[in-house]
Amino acid sequence: MMVLETLSVFPQLFEPYMSTSIMGRARLAGLFSFEAHDLRDWTHDRHRTVDDAPFGGGQGMLMKPEPIFEAVRDIAGRGPCGAHVVFFSPCGSTFTQRHARRLAGKERILFVCGRYEGMDERVYELADEVLSMGDYVLTGGELAALCVMDAVVRLVPGALGDAMSSVDESFEGSLLEYAQYTRPASFEGREAPQVLLSGDHARIAAWRRKSAIARTATWRPDLLDGADLTQEEWALARRAMEAGHEEDEANEQ
Amino acid sequence: MMVLETLSVFPQLFEPYMSTSIMGRARLAGLFSFEAHDLRDWTHDRHRTVDDAPFGGGQGMLMKPEPIFEAVRDIAGRGPCGAHVVFFSPCGSTFTQRHARRLAGKERILFVCGRYEGMDERVYELADEVLSMGDYVLTGGELAALCVMDAVVRLVPGALGDAMSSVDESFEGSLLEYAQYTRPASFEGREAPQVLLSGDHARIAAWRRKSAIARTATWRPDLLDGADLTQEEWALARRAMEAGHEEDEANEQ
Repeated sequence: MMVLETLSVFPQLFEPYMSTSIMGRARLAGLFSFEAHDLRDWTHDRHRTVDDAPFGGGQGMLMKPEPIFEAVRDIAGRGPCGAHVVFFSPCGSTFTQRHARRLAGKERILFVCGRYEGMDERVYELADEVLSMGDYVLTGGELAALCVMDAVVRLVPGALGDAMSSVDESFEGSLLEYAQYTRPASFEGREAPQVLLSGDHARIAAWRRKSAIARTATWRPDLLDGADLTQEEWALARRAMEAGHEEDEANEQ
Repeated sequence: MMVLETLSVFPQLFEPYMSTSIMGRARLAGLFSFEAHDLRDWTHDRHRTVDDAPFGGGQGMLMKPEPIFEAVRDIAGRGPCGAHVVFFSPCGSTFTQRHARRLAGKERILFVCGRYEGMDERVYELADEVLSMGDYVLTGGELAALCVMDAVVRLVPGALGDAMSSVDESFEGSLLEYAQYTRPASFEGREAPQVLLSGDHARIAAWRRKSAIARTATWRPDLLDGADLTQEEWALARRAMEAGHEEDEANEQ
């Protein structure tokens, strides 16, 4: 069973999400356990201080090194296997589905979540891995940890149940997922593609492959570098890039 | 006052985060209001059905078009100003601090959060804007909406309070933020840079600028394309890229 842990000054922020829907069911099913640690438990003053003013001046407060060093050493050292320690920083590696797949193979992960204006730089030596969630700034690492835990847990075998799948989805094979439709076939004059109602599995599979390629070429041509396409598929991708919209191509068949 | 709203089948997931820390204080201070709508309120069958099987087969369920069309039209049409409607999809524009700054100027934003295997493609015509949080897959749009709301609210004037600032931080001026240190000056043999303890504001400012450039060149050289550097600073950036580690450069002075 995978063990997920967080270290934060707002440990109460995690439980609602970790108890709901797919996360909650996977946890109840014993696919992973979760524990939120309160960083203030590793302080030794009456005010349980975790922050201090930055050297050199400037606005805001930084997270002090001592409680973080003590907490990470303490938590990661518990149990039979050490924890894989993840910090968040804009300097980190931008989190992708590739990171999620790798992390889904870990036995134990500890996510260290900052707050305030940032952390004392020295704490990052505790990290086995530093992740960035993208080129934007959050008020703390809690949402970052929740995003990573969500992306990781859904890849743990059994987490999505029999009814769902993580195989046929965006970023697999470097393609975005194909366009999807459900009932009604016609909604206020907007028609679902006829081919999807044909029952012809080969044509449907071909349409979906084309849809995935055309969508990727239109919206995320950068992803195609990693895609394994035939010559004919590359031609389709080029036409979609020139047209600037995937639907013409995807609906061609 | 900015109005933030969400449409989701798990409306209860938002309140804990939206009531805590900076978000909670900004909300209490009247800098924004928040309302989480339950998509099932726009269903008309006994089971309050929001999903259906995909046309053409495949695993999982899709979100049906009717409740989403009805809910978005209903919610966005309320009040004196229309809502800016945001959907999430891997086909969307990857969310960055630039999006956050733009969205912070909106009066009203409605975030539509999917679940299950995805949404019927036709619903995206309701979107004023489609965002992607990055190249990874989440079980639903709720965390995406929380991340965007967090990044946006902290940019609303007054949200960070007098003690903090969103001016001197990562992604401003296309640079990562400089390394930061707080007490103790020496922690288990790890020293904070002497210059930061010097009280010499000009030297500190120069060190911080160098630190920001060297860190960006080391970890995110792609960001430098948008940075406004002097010739001397470009030389520093090139040396940091070659050295592969920012600290040598940043600590040089």
